[in-house]
Amino acid sequence: MTIKVGVLGAKGRVGQAIVEGVNAADDLELVAEIDRDTPLQELVDNGAEVVVDFTQPGVVMDNLKFVVEHGIHAVVGTTGFDAERLAKVEEWTKAEGAGHVLIAPNFAISAVLTMTLAKQAAKFFETAEVIEFHHPTKLDAPSGTAIHTAQGIAAARKEAGLGAMPDATEQSLEGARGADVDGVPVHAVRMRGMVAHEEVIFGAQGQSLTIRQDSYDRSSFTPGVLVGVRNIAEHPGLVVGLDNYLDL
Amino acid sequence: MTIKVGVLGAKGRVGQAIVEGVNAADDLELVAEIDRDTPLQELVDNGAEVVVDFTQPGVVMDNLKFVVEHGIHAVVGTTGFDAERLAKVEEWTKAEGAGHVLIAPNFAISAVLTMTLAKQAAKFFETAEVIEFHHPTKLDAPSGTAIHTAQGIAAARKEAGLGAMPDATEQSLEGARGADVDGVPVHAVRMRGMVAHEEVIFGAQGQSLTIRQDSYDRSSFTPGVLVGVRNIAEHPGLVVGLDNYLDL
Amino acid sequence: MTIKVGVLGAKGRVGQAIVEGVNAADDLELVAEIDRDTPLQELVDNGAEVVVDFTQPGVVMDNLKFVVEHGIHAVVGTTGFDAERLAKVEEWTKAEGAGHVLIAPNFAISAVLTMTLAKQAAKFFETAEVIEFHHPTKLDAPSGTAIHTAQGIAAARKEAGLGAMPDATEQSLEGARGADVDGVPVHAVRMRGMVAHEEVIFGAQGQSLTIRQDSYDRSSFTPGVLVGVRNIAEHPGLVVGLDNYLDL
Amino acid sequence: MTIKVGVLGAKGRVGQAIVEGVNAADDLELVAEIDRDTPLQELVDNGAEVVVDFTQPGVVMDNLKFVVEHGIHAVVGTTGFDAERLAKVEEWTKAEGAGHVLIAPNFAISAVLTMTLAKQAAKFFETAEVIEFHHPTKLDAPSGTAIHTAQGIAAARKEAGLGAMPDATEQSLEGARGADVDGVPVHAVRMRGMVAHEEVIFGAQGQSLTIRQDSYDRSSFTPGVLVGVRNIAEHPGLVVGLDNYLDL
Repeated sequence: MTIKVGVLGAKGRVGQAIVEGVNAADDLELVAEIDRDTPLQELVDNGAEVVVDFTQPGVVMDNLKFVVEHGIHAVVGTTGFDAERLAKVEEWTKAEGAGHVLIAPNFAISAVLTMTLAKQAAKFFETAEVIEFHHPTKLDAPSGTAIHTAQGIAAARKEAGLGAMPDATEQSLEGARGADVDGVPVHAVRMRGMVAHEEVIFGAQGQSLTIRQDSYDRSSFTPGVLVGVRNIAEHPGLVVGLDNYLDL
Repeated sequence: MTIKVGVLGAKGRVGQAIVEGVNAADDLELVAEIDRDTPLQELVDNGAEVVVDFTQPGVVMDNLKFVVEHGIHAVVGTTGFDAERLAKVEEWTKAEGAGHVLIAPNFAISAVLTMTLAKQAAKFFETAEVIEFHHPTKLDAPSGTAIHTAQGIAAARKEAGLGAMPDATEQSLEGARGADVDGVPVHAVRMRGMVAHEEVIFGAQGQSLTIRQDSYDRSSFTPGVLVGVRNIAEHPGLVVGLDNYLDL
Repeated sequence: MTIKVGVLGAKGRVGQAIVEGVNAADDLELVAEIDRDTPLQELVDNGAEVVVDFTQPGVVMDNLKFVVEHGIHAVVGTTGFDAERLAKVEEWTKAEGAGHVLIAPNFAISAVLTMTLAKQAAKFFETAEVIEFHHPTKLDAPSGTAIHTAQGIAAARKEAGLGAMPDATEQSLEGARGADVDGVPVHAVRMRGMVAHEEVIFGAQGQSLTIRQDSYDRSSFTPGVLVGVRNIAEHPGLVVGLDNYLDL
Repeated sequence: MTIKVGVLGAKGRVGQAIVEGVNAADDLELVAEIDRDTPLQELVDNGAEVVVDFTQPGVVMDNLKFVVEHGIHAVVGTTGFDAERLAKVEEWTKAEGAGHVLIAPNFAISAVLTMTLAKQAAKFFETAEVIEFHHPTKLDAPSGTAIHTAQGIAAARKEAGLGAMPDATEQSLEGARGADVDGVPVHAVRMRGMVAHEEVIFGAQGQSLTIRQDSYDRSSFTPGVLVGVRNIAEHPGLVVGLDNYLDL
């Protein structure tokens, strides 16, 4: 019993990778490849149960309205969702027989898991720091993912009643101890050849725990998208963030 | 409101470290240091709520009978528990007003978390391998912890319906691909200077996730023991394994 | 003062990457892109000083004969050189005014440096092991590079009078301690998503030293080729192996 | 043919470790353990060829004057040498038949090698950064060793004609990109449980090279001291820095 999948933006760089991923999976069947000139009706005609949408902010809302109204679920990696858009999508999903929607900013399963596992581990350790590594053409430092990870750790520490981390530094070169994100030091390395990597280190007496994720190339979103496709039937309404699908 | 703690085997190497750890914790109060020549009654007289027992197989059963009957909880790192002993302890804990007991083979919180997090992550990845690193005077390879970790990963993979891992190796030097533990390759490194370290690596398309634990010295059991002391009141009866206390 | 470079096999996948690399380098000038249908004479006409040859075993000897006789240096990544071929090339390079030749099996500078630095460090440590990581479609385990690295370490240990490494293992699962390459344990990990990675670990009392190399994609040979191009004028005759150019 | 060794400060914490190290080495013979109350003459009487001095700034100059004048070599880890003291020691070593002296601020062989190998590798890579990890009770950040390492990399880059590293960062949290040491970013992590660790990462197209050193406990100076003892006969005069003994 396979799941029938349609891909929106099937000719885009990401869309092509999704098409390959679906084709390679025994439990998924590709029934429609939609691009600019393909009518969405083809999804209905071919019995798509789930669509994957990696398109553009300019068309994604129309896509979602159509599929949700036709009871087709949508796994969405397209960017540009603000509170207003999310509210609108959520409303659509509340109708009787509506499709479910998963919208996620990051589908790299290893990156999402790093954040999730780090939040779980945080309360058991006295200290925690984040190091992220990216190619030197990246414009922001630290990465959004690293900031998000540090915030999650800080929240978990607070909830567990942990105070400020010990740090006896008295004499320091500016910047040595990293950026301070809610009390968690975050260090950004820019290295030619690297792609996207994140390391979270926790320390307690006599030991440390490291959770590290390496993205080696841009196809790394595929496994996460397939987790979405396989599980969306069990997650009604609108869900934001792949971590909500990781039944840990 | 502090927890009143007694330490059994307080003059042993491990006991001393526990004493230090309890003294350094604001929320714990050391009320009794018991050794060979100290009567257990002192625990009762001083109002101990929890004891930590790192003693010997020859005395631990007497210790546990006493404290459980007096409604004192016990966090136990002493070895030598077989099914018969565990059954006896469990029965003691079932009496009205009996103390709770936590018995764990490994209190290094980073090692226990590595096993727990690895089990959670396993189902999202196509491949998984374990590498452990120890000093060259270790007698067994791989370590018991690494075998246990691999078994946990294998079970999680099976439960998620994952099959054998891909491995195209045709030409191999004997031993290169490690030991096979339920289908999970495990590699053991023996390195002068190292203490005890374990690395679990997971791979999916375009990415990998690594969970690594480093024990730098033998005091690394202390934080895990304190997790036990702080939470035992909420875990009635007999619990085996610190992982059951890690409310992830 | 730039170096004038010709690329043989310029339309091949590797050749294209070399063309890009030469174009991006301020100190190099691309003067000829030779492919199947381009006469080699173009190299001479355009004043090429160095050629890069990533072609086929079937044509590389003709290419080399031509360029060496015309006093043009050659940096060669083409495979298929046996002792007989090497002898022939060496003879050509001995003629008055002949071009120099560098033939190397591996141009990934990080991999070549890992081998070179590991050989240097080996004599200062009691233990050494090699771990290599590749995608699960690799046919051999361990990789040729890892075997070569272990052999280099073994030779350096022998030269320094170091004996067998300490290893107290008495009870072992088959394969756990890796493959034995001249007394150096080598472990091979096969991980989906990974490309080509090698880690050499050395241990001495209270410390370890790790040298690790990560190849993230197939363009990783380019920097090493450019090291060859820039330095070949100073290395007359035939040189085999990029390590001979790394003036450490 | 063993080397006869005397240990100055033999009852100090470090001295005891040295005594153990010498006793454990087949090619070294411990002939004198000197402490506060032992006359230095014992070194001469027992035929010491090399002494190891881990004492105090207040006594080390007297020790050195005595041994150098008696033709005994000295491996010195005692601190407090300024230019004036070094000049004096150097003068002593110039006398006919004088002992040789090695003074080093860091005898951890893995740390010294990390610096040395990093300097060698630097010129082959477009980017380089240093990360150091220490316990949270350390007062300075980054560590002196990390600053020294970064300076060595910067000097090697300059000598090779490499310019500033690429870094497109436009939007940054303060401190994220680390401290700037001669153009090399240095990041300092403070982690409970860790001891002293340093990682140097180099990046080039499609690849990276990492050199990492871990000190697990304070005995990590011993192997470097023994390198000094074994080789000092071949290094006349005063030598500052163990790296000068690492014949790479």
